[in-house]
Amino acid sequence: MNPELYEYIEEKLFQKGALDVYKTPMIMKKGRPAIKLTILVNEDKVENIEEIIFIETTSIGIRKYPVEKVMLRRDFSTVKTDFGEVTVKNSYYKDKLIKCKPEYEDCKKLAKKNNISIKEIYEEIRNKGD
Amino acid sequence: MNPELYEYIEEKLFQKGALDVYKTPMIMKKGRPAIKLTILVNEDKVENIEEIIFIETTSIGIRKYPVEKVMLRRDFSTVKTDFGEVTVKNSYYKDKLIKCKPEYEDCKKLAKKNNISIKEIYEEIRNKGD
Amino acid sequence: MNPELYEYIEEKLFQKGALDVYKTPMIMKKGRPAIKLTILVNEDKVENIEEIIFIETTSIGIRKYPVEKVMLRRDFSTVKTDFGEVTVKNSYYKDKLIKCKPEYEDCKKLAKKNNISIKEIYEEIRNKGD
Amino acid sequence: MNPELYEYIEEKLFQKGALDVYKTPMIMKKGRPAIKLTILVNEDKVENIEEIIFIETTSIGIRKYPVEKVMLRRDFSTVKTDFGEVTVKNSYYKDKLIKCKPEYEDCKKLAKKNNISIKEIYEEIRNKGD
Amino acid sequence: MNPELYEYIEEKLFQKGALDVYKTPMIMKKGRPAIKLTILVNEDKVENIEEIIFIETTSIGIRKYPVEKVMLRRDFSTVKTDFGEVTVKNSYYKDKLIKCKPEYEDCKKLAKKNNISIKEIYEEIRNKGD
Amino acid sequence: MNPELYEYIEEKLFQKGALDVYKTPMIMKKGRPAIKLTILVNEDKVENIEEIIFIETTSIGIRKYPVEKVMLRRDFSTVKTDFGEVTVKNSYYKDKLIKCKPEYEDCKKLAKKNNISIKEIYEEIRNKGD
Repeated sequence: MNPELYEYIEEKLFQKGALDVYKTPMIMKKGRPAIKLTILVNEDKVENIEEIIFIETTSIGIRKYPVEKVMLRRDFSTVKTDFGEVTVKNSYYKDKLIKCKPEYEDCKKLAKKNNISIKEIYEEIRNKGD
Repeated sequence: MNPELYEYIEEKLFQKGALDVYKTPMIMKKGRPAIKLTILVNEDKVENIEEIIFIETTSIGIRKYPVEKVMLRRDFSTVKTDFGEVTVKNSYYKDKLIKCKPEYEDCKKLAKKNNISIKEIYEEIRNKGD
Repeated sequence: MNPELYEYIEEKLFQKGALDVYKTPMIMKKGRPAIKLTILVNEDKVENIEEIIFIETTSIGIRKYPVEKVMLRRDFSTVKTDFGEVTVKNSYYKDKLIKCKPEYEDCKKLAKKNNISIKEIYEEIRNKGD
Repeated sequence: MNPELYEYIEEKLFQKGALDVYKTPMIMKKGRPAIKLTILVNEDKVENIEEIIFIETTSIGIRKYPVEKVMLRRDFSTVKTDFGEVTVKNSYYKDKLIKCKPEYEDCKKLAKKNNISIKEIYEEIRNKGD
Repeated sequence: MNPELYEYIEEKLFQKGALDVYKTPMIMKKGRPAIKLTILVNEDKVENIEEIIFIETTSIGIRKYPVEKVMLRRDFSTVKTDFGEVTVKNSYYKDKLIKCKPEYEDCKKLAKKNNISIKEIYEEIRNKGD
Repeated sequence: MNPELYEYIEEKLFQKGALDVYKTPMIMKKGRPAIKLTILVNEDKVENIEEIIFIETTSIGIRKYPVEKVMLRRDFSTVKTDFGEVTVKNSYYKDKLIKCKPEYEDCKKLAKKNNISIKEIYEEIRNKGD
């Protein structure tokens, strides 16, 4: 498959209910290099997803198996930096806050607007977050 | 494992009922590079496949889990090109023809016999197929 | 995640009951390169493992599915070489010995102590083992 | 490094003169999984590129070696389809047209606008192009 | 590119003078998965190889750089096993024999003809070789 | 090659002068999965390295090409945390400190000794470092 198309297909898959999409390089029979497309989806959206795969990709076969997904509880907060505001995703394990992750798109925007390194933004947030 | 042996082992796996075989590069414990061998097989052939894996490969453990396979309905037709005949695999989604794939082995044979690029064969078929 | 941390995390996972741990390079949504961490564990240890993943890694979500593990029966023997003793892992398929694997850590020790190639140790064992 | 940042960094690298950027999954010393970032750049832009790598990534070392780049001669044409116009990149080997590649971004736009599969757009172009 | 074609293209590359051909999974700009095709060739055959790449693959650009190849001196001998003869490739470092490698194609043939595991053939050779 | 041996071989390579060693999964001719071993070394140590490769690995051929290495200037400092001291590697670009990286081995030791998450150590250092 034309590798440019993955972006388009992934966008469509998320629109139609995919919870996650990833690709794994592998080697098919006869030594052919390939990409395995893995999609996580709720059971009621499976048919939507199959339709996109069959219509938009070169694939003619799909394998399905049930998985259970365990997610940390999450909420969002806002951190004010010298360069502007950034949304931070906070994750909780057994009600204890254990991870804070600045939203990449926010950081990217501020780095560009302020013409500084994106790492500086992340460091700013880390300091403000203490 | 000697990587030359995969070809031999895959051939044997398909003979004994494997529906698909693929390999994924991965990293085992202690940072050891390795290849994960994945085999899709009907339940009644699982024992055959296990025997080959244990006898022919260096593996001493196998993991099994059930998967459901969804395949497009397929049939085959023949396309006449200026260089010779090529079998084409047609796939249908909900009774609509959505994919036509020339058989690689046929195209390869014609490209060699006619001393032309294999891409020319594929293009010929595409034009004839319209 | 800082890739140096995998060694530490894997050690902890094995301590807490992981039967196997491996990593697969893959590509997340939006083309982001990533490592998928796969852990094999008995059902009664799943919670231990989840705790380590959530606390020690950057992951905020886990997928779980049941797999059946088939292992060859194994025992260990000792081979005396000119350079010292090496433990060998013997694997049996249907009561027939089919694989003998010298323990790497033993071979490494002897290669270093005797200042010879580790391949020589493996060959010695192979000859003694006949 | 946070894998989200690659998009931002690649954008910056292209702005500062990179001719191509790609990433290869690999395994560093001590079995650590990593991504090798490879950048193709004209000699006069090397310093720009080094600055971005050192400032924006976690890397503290770069390897450089000269490569010669051979490119096919290319030009662009426009194909009118039933869904709209698409730019096509034509490549020539020794003055013979050997490759025609529709611009992905154009196809994506038309697929979305017309609510059809992107594959239909590509096929349309192929037929019009004959 | 259709991954089936690699076999055909590699065969052609070797016919036209390639000394080695290998493929590396990587990630192009915009997160597109791809395969890097690497070819080792003597300088006088470079043009042949470029022609195949440009005509038979979807590539429109090639990068070239000089490498020096160091090969062990090699010769071939024949080992008689209970199942038939096998050619063995012997490699010498500073005139000392350091590696003996049975030819895979020979072993495969004997394993099939005698209906035994290919590993048995390799072990037979190892024992006879002592 | 037995993937367990990489650890041993890498250790030896670094002892004999390798500046860096990494491994890349790739696909050899005939679709065989393999690992490419890449070694960075000063010219005066090349022969040492070749000897290890030829004697300790299954390889019978090596490719060499000159690369230029650009490294940031680095020094080390010590950070006192509530859990103990950690060495930090500081990197400078044009005399400006741009990166501070705690030594993993130190952090690992303190995490184990204090029975806390290794991430807590890293965060402590980050805070003390401000």
